[in-house]
Amino acid sequence: MRERDWRTKPRSRGPRDSHYNPPRERATDVVLYGWHSVTAALANPARHIRRLLVTENALRRLNDDGVALPEALEVVRPDAIAARLTPDAVHQGLYAETDPLPSPDIETLPVAGIVLVLDQITDPHNVGAILRTAAAFAVAAIVTTARHSPEATGVLAKSASGALELVPIISVQNLARGIAALRERGFSVVGLDSEADDELDALPLKAPLALVLGAEGKGLRQGTRAVCERLARLGLPGAIKSLNVSNAAALALYIASRATA
Amino acid sequence: MRERDWRTKPRSRGPRDSHYNPPRERATDVVLYGWHSVTAALANPARHIRRLLVTENALRRLNDDGVALPEALEVVRPDAIAARLTPDAVHQGLYAETDPLPSPDIETLPVAGIVLVLDQITDPHNVGAILRTAAAFAVAAIVTTARHSPEATGVLAKSASGALELVPIISVQNLARGIAALRERGFSVVGLDSEADDELDALPLKAPLALVLGAEGKGLRQGTRAVCERLARLGLPGAIKSLNVSNAAALALYIASRATA
Repeated sequence: MRERDWRTKPRSRGPRDSHYNPPRERATDVVLYGWHSVTAALANPARHIRRLLVTENALRRLNDDGVALPEALEVVRPDAIAARLTPDAVHQGLYAETDPLPSPDIETLPVAGIVLVLDQITDPHNVGAILRTAAAFAVAAIVTTARHSPEATGVLAKSASGALELVPIISVQNLARGIAALRERGFSVVGLDSEADDELDALPLKAPLALVLGAEGKGLRQGTRAVCERLARLGLPGAIKSLNVSNAAALALYIASRATA
Repeated sequence: MRERDWRTKPRSRGPRDSHYNPPRERATDVVLYGWHSVTAALANPARHIRRLLVTENALRRLNDDGVALPEALEVVRPDAIAARLTPDAVHQGLYAETDPLPSPDIETLPVAGIVLVLDQITDPHNVGAILRTAAAFAVAAIVTTARHSPEATGVLAKSASGALELVPIISVQNLARGIAALRERGFSVVGLDSEADDELDALPLKAPLALVLGAEGKGLRQGTRAVCERLARLGLPGAIKSLNVSNAAALALYIASRATA
């Protein structure tokens, strides 16, 4: 079963008659649960773990695997973890609260390899699966917008299966400007578009390369499309001409990594 | 947002002191909702629609598109549809109750093209995405077990985005016997296994071909593995060596359809 989104506890709102103004920033706490997500975070020196809850069984397994554990460790019963998550979340006895990872920027990104650009893909399961596949293809970074993107926590982290620790996420205010910056730095930029004339595997692809993916149904926004150097579609011989976005990302990465290897 | 699983209404159980025996068969009602799932069903002559609920807006759009409509049509308000689904289901004004499609069998399957075999993949979102990608690659059929597979309804149908009407699902009691039957009929059978020596795109693949996929984490069961002709893995250059199962299916289908075209 797929778990539902992890939900934060309702925040205290302060008294009604005060000038209390709820914070507008995104939550800064990252929640990780499940074996792959938490052990990958423990192995990542850049990840600051604030709190780690583990069950006795999970602790035994961590010790068997020789995993180095932080001081902020609390051994708890499974229901203490379950109470913090939705009923269908598969936590496997591991739950962590951490700082978010630093977001690097395009200016310091090495000009090499493949970068994935996500244009308002909002489903955390899909973004998590894309991160996982990106890590499998050694993608250098994912560029995404600060708004209209799911936070790198909870169900996204679970779907990413540890990939959150492996693929840097560059969060930009304006995607078109981000793509322009990638082009200035020497990346060739190809946007995936099911209406494009060319098939991706027929294009002469070379690294450094940025592949741009839009949301299912909506596709690339006009402003995004306009700054891509080329548009291409996936060659699909069957009756359905569009894929789940994480499936599309997997194919695009396979094609691009073969072509640029 | 991804919708949660569609849930059937709790069945009446009958009085406690009776000899009432709850039915062991699977529910025979199929529920379809959302634009792609329902319009694909309306276009499928083999699909018997028992009941169709549409909103006024959706009816206008169906008429604009010249969609032929069944007699069993009721124009309703959106909340009459929403009340039948989980709160996060995106129904787009269309909801249908139908008979299940007939399950063909391996003996009558044309010996051509690519078949996908699913070994206890239980997540309905993943199976739906696999169906959609299978339709995009013109897969001839999906073979799956009657048990330990999600039903072809609700969230699976929504994720399949109409593909349920395009890809026949062959449901077998025993997967190893099903694979043996495919081999007897002339299919070569390749199982995907992340521990295999060979990479799939290095194998000499030829149609008719059956690709066998196992569940994430568990992989292929021993009995399934034993009846495959070959095992192969996907060549993944990065730090993560396994993909979301629908992403793995997409890559395998791309590789196989290029090799057998």
